Amino acid sequence: MITRSSKLGHICFVGAGPGDPELLTLRAADRLRTADLILRDILVPDELIAATGARAQVVNVGRLCGGEETQEARLARIHAWLIEGYREGRRIVRLKSGDPFIFGRAVEELQRLIEADIPFECVPGITAGIAAANLAQIPLTERYTSPSVLFCTGQTAGGGTDRIEAWASLLRGGTTLVLYMGLKALAHIAPRLQSAVPADEIHVSAISQVSAPGQLVVHAPLSRVEATLSERPLPLPVVFILGLHAQPLAERLAQPLAPCANHE
Amino acid sequence: MITRSSKLGHICFVGAGPGDPELLTLRAADRLRTADLILRDILVPDELIAATGARAQVVNVGRLCGGEETQEARLARIHAWLIEGYREGRRIVRLKSGDPFIFGRAVEELQRLIEADIPFECVPGITAGIAAANLAQIPLTERYTSPSVLFCTGQTAGGGTDRIEAWASLLRGGTTLVLYMGLKALAHIAPRLQSAVPADEIHVSAISQVSAPGQLVVHAPLSRVEATLSERPLPLPVVFILGLHAQPLAERLAQPLAPCANHE
Repeated sequence: MITRSSKLGHICFVGAGPGDPELLTLRAADRLRTADLILRDILVPDELIAATGARAQVVNVGRLCGGEETQEARLARIHAWLIEGYREGRRIVRLKSGDPFIFGRAVEELQRLIEADIPFECVPGITAGIAAANLAQIPLTERYTSPSVLFCTGQTAGGGTDRIEAWASLLRGGTTLVLYMGLKALAHIAPRLQSAVPADEIHVSAISQVSAPGQLVVHAPLSRVEATLSERPLPLPVVFILGLHAQPLAERLAQPLAPCANHE
Repeated sequence: MITRSSKLGHICFVGAGPGDPELLTLRAADRLRTADLILRDILVPDELIAATGARAQVVNVGRLCGGEETQEARLARIHAWLIEGYREGRRIVRLKSGDPFIFGRAVEELQRLIEADIPFECVPGITAGIAAANLAQIPLTERYTSPSVLFCTGQTAGGGTDRIEAWASLLRGGTTLVLYMGLKALAHIAPRLQSAVPADEIHVSAISQVSAPGQLVVHAPLSRVEATLSERPLPLPVVFILGLHAQPLAERLAQPLAPCANHE
């Protein structure tokens, strides 16, 4: 027999950050510690949940690689856990890698809650690109020379010639590009970008397994990035940072002045 | 007489997040708690430092509004604190609003440390745009319809017609724009953007004092944003989110279907 609480529950969408438990926010750590039920993505490491002292039931709601579950069936499963748990008075954390609103697809999961008039809380997380920038010491913006930063995905990269031209225009203007899930995509876009930008001046840093003990950083000018990565294959996931200054600061400052250095 | 420690110190550039102490990362909170010296920006609230239990000496190194200190003098003052503190064996936190590498100008402060071969650590922070998205429940990306997100500043907005065209092109393609320090800039760019995009379909959310108890969210279509903001002036700082879906989810779902909803 299930005893239903007369009290309604609490639903919280939490950004887990890039993986290192120390990069959780204090609020995220609190919500995990006090949860009864945690619905986790595949990319979130078990150690992160354990490090918070969580005593909750943990359910993997990520789609398993090679699994047969459709996206719709998966969403229905998540909604059932959220809505039933809420009605049973449970404190539920929907734990998403990085940040819920940056490539986290939170909207699809939140839509039914809004339709059912069920309240929820959202807790931001450190997104992998920003963690990578800090841990590898690669600036994403700089006064005068890098006025803005675009976050995009490998999936986005499939968008044809228009998108490549837009990206090339941003890169030429100094905007930094942060590319998620882009290892395969880079093989397609690097040759096309190379013909549209000064490919020796645009740097590419690849950061593998951001914030994990095995984090690796490889960097090369865009003109040589494919050769460099084929010599040194990187474990997934990999985040790419592309731009006029997209190399670790210490290496950049050890080199002859870059073409833009006179603006600084 | 100053007793110099034989041990060298530790320098850590820390992202403070948007202001709410609960949005510090666990690592940031630890570095603040164990610091001997905290060099803080003006935008970081005193309560945030106090909430970590920090016992450090706290020095404001931000440029005071209306102050006469030049940017060079200010940088020299920061470098002196960092380098002397390091040689005295102190644990120093350079506390920056948001994230050090997103509009944080960390590079200028780090350059001299690298030249002097002084090691440092960087701890990412929740940048105001991502906090605003979560706290106001406004998605920054969405599968199919919002493939990427650009972070830019009002300063950037001065960049002439080319930049407006690039932004308009991104907005038309579904990219979300997050505009920092843009209240004045919006008055310049809104009319110019309006003539380059379908201004009734592009939404603008203004989030004032992100994560503070006084946080306010106002939203309107781009075509009406100036009128809306003149009716309801917002306290600074304000972050703007612009895009096809840049409105709080609950309001969006309460309305008739937007033109893009059939893709979802």
